[in-house]
Amino acid sequence: MAHSIAVIGGDGIGPEVVAEALKVVSATGVDITTKEFDLGARHYLETGEVLNDSTLEELRSFDAILLGAIGPAIGSTDVPPGLLERGLLLKLRFALDLYINQRPFISPDPDSGFQGLPIDMVVVRENTEGTYAGEGGFLRRGTPYEVATQGSVNTRFGVERTVIYAFRLASQRPRKHLTLVHKTNVLTYSGDLWQRTFDEVAKEFPDVNVSYSHVDAACIYLVEAPQRYDVVVTDNLFGDILTDLAGAVSGGIGLAASGNLNPERTSPSLFEPVHGAAHDIVGSGKANPTAAIRSAAMMLDFLGEKEAASRVFKALESSPKTNLRTEEIGSFYAERI
Amino acid sequence: MAHSIAVIGGDGIGPEVVAEALKVVSATGVDITTKEFDLGARHYLETGEVLNDSTLEELRSFDAILLGAIGPAIGSTDVPPGLLERGLLLKLRFALDLYINQRPFISPDPDSGFQGLPIDMVVVRENTEGTYAGEGGFLRRGTPYEVATQGSVNTRFGVERTVIYAFRLASQRPRKHLTLVHKTNVLTYSGDLWQRTFDEVAKEFPDVNVSYSHVDAACIYLVEAPQRYDVVVTDNLFGDILTDLAGAVSGGIGLAASGNLNPERTSPSLFEPVHGAAHDIVGSGKANPTAAIRSAAMMLDFLGEKEAASRVFKALESSPKTNLRTEEIGSFYAERI
Ligand SMILES: CC(C)[C@H](C(=O)O)[C@@H](O)C(=O)O
Ligand SMILES: CC(C)[C@H](C(=O)O)[C@@H](O)C(=O)O
Repeated sequence: MAHSIAVIGGDGIGPEVVAEALKVVSATGVDITTKEFDLGARHYLETGEVLNDSTLEELRSFDAILLGAIGPAIGSTDVPPGLLERGLLLKLRFALDLYINQRPFISPDPDSGFQGLPIDMVVVRENTEGTYAGEGGFLRRGTPYEVATQGSVNTRFGVERTVIYAFRLASQRPRKHLTLVHKTNVLTYSGDLWQRTFDEVAKEFPDVNVSYSHVDAACIYLVEAPQRYDVVVTDNLFGDILTDLAGAVSGGIGLAASGNLNPERTSPSLFEPVHGAAHDIVGSGKANPTAAIRSAAMMLDFLGEKEAASRVFKALESSPKTNLRTEEIGSFYAERI
Repeated sequence: MAHSIAVIGGDGIGPEVVAEALKVVSATGVDITTKEFDLGARHYLETGEVLNDSTLEELRSFDAILLGAIGPAIGSTDVPPGLLERGLLLKLRFALDLYINQRPFISPDPDSGFQGLPIDMVVVRENTEGTYAGEGGFLRRGTPYEVATQGSVNTRFGVERTVIYAFRLASQRPRKHLTLVHKTNVLTYSGDLWQRTFDEVAKEFPDVNVSYSHVDAACIYLVEAPQRYDVVVTDNLFGDILTDLAGAVSGGIGLAASGNLNPERTSPSLFEPVHGAAHDIVGSGKANPTAAIRSAAMMLDFLGEKEAASRVFKALESSPKTNLRTEEIGSFYAERI
């Protein structure tokens, strides 16, 4: 039976890179049906709606969601900051309980990592809690005595299921190594919950070697010694920061893919490049669709199409010439399936 | 009159690098008196005390504080996580109202930045608010239903004085460029306060060009295009993360200096390297004292010893041979004063 895919091109270069990802999926011959959803900045400006309830319910009926990018141009004033992100991308992560954000980083060839250091790591980012819960508020807003609070909400339930997922993943990889990244020396409440949960779950996985890095130190290691990491598990905001950095040091953010996963498959998982909408290069042919293509390969894999997925991953090991345009890069990979 | 300096070597390599910084200060001939304070992990384990009130009061009477590093070894279980950091370093930042953490990054020669990109930037980190306020708590700790919250507290007062300081600094530099780094699309309360304050203060500094980066994008830019930044202003936790990364991409964290400043001089300012205690290399001679020496130069400058400070900064433009030991690097610079 065909897999049904909801396609959200979104904003900026989102639609351009998603088109190339679908070109490559199509080359695999896997049977899919797609339906496009016009959501994002343009849709909001035309209709005043970000994501209405009936669209959300419709999205639930698909097998997976493929998304390009969401967000207005930096500095644009048409759309209030965070409205699209919170109302669409983050809403989907929360409403569909996509609690794992899995982001693999592989330097394309052994010498291409930053300073020639080979990178082969996966970040498992908790995706439904922390500061992304949106807790906070204002007191005396707009006065000299204003206080703005922003909370991070962390539950044993949410942290534990993420940590268990990360241990399972680590135990299946050759190095069997898992690092917790947090800032336990300053974030003494949330850090304590993460550290305790990590230590307790570790007892169930005696074959996995564990380590810990403070988030600031992890940034240094990602630049100077990324081979230190195999699987990294971390909270929502640190995961956001670390994965952009890991993308930059492992061949560029144009290569970094992600899966927003509901491992129990009670709702469709969502696959998207780590990069943003990059409004400044829309239509220039400069957008790199590789991250979107790799995200689509993660989608095929998650849908059980292991063989097709591995053909796409294999194709992604070839490097196209530099200076190819977006659609030429898509065709380059499609021809190698 | 002699400047009185309180010296806190602290933990790990802290005492080693501070000794070299004092060697270089002594070579400038500036008249200082020093008093050493034995504080840190060893002192805590011996006495059960981190920083008592009378020591804190005594520290207030000095003209400046020079600190090495604070913190137990990663994974050590003798000292509860965060106890020394919160009880000593962070306590000093808060008690002395050292609300600016100023961290300059200069790639030692034009080609030595990451990918040969020259870096000449200053991060102005808010130093007394945000998640460092320690707000938060537990509900049902140790049960499957545990909730741990961790708050970020931001005031107009605290943000505004930091932003004003950053604009003043930017307006004195040749490029006159200031970037706000935050995560306004997710941290809608604290981000809104920062953005509004930034925009309002900007009107008072029409000669300064401004821009904005999300913290995740800023990590990419620091790796791929650090020359985009001149002065960066950001909150406490983002400043912590960005400055370790900026250190790594601008020649290594062993070079990165900082001043924890009370610009109104109602209490002594504190100068320290950005790097940590690095317990794994204690006594090996591998600790690089350059960051401590540069921090001491910032201290001389802040104390009004402009001429001596600029001689140290000038000396720091020479690069010692690689593989010199800690004390050889200190002597290398001392000889060039
Ligand atoms: C667009 C934004 C809300 C999002 C995030 O912060 O999670 C993005 O940066 C990401 O990493 O997926
Ligand atoms: C030691 C630690 C508490 C401190 C911080 O987080 O501020 C350090 O990382 C720094 O950057 O000065």
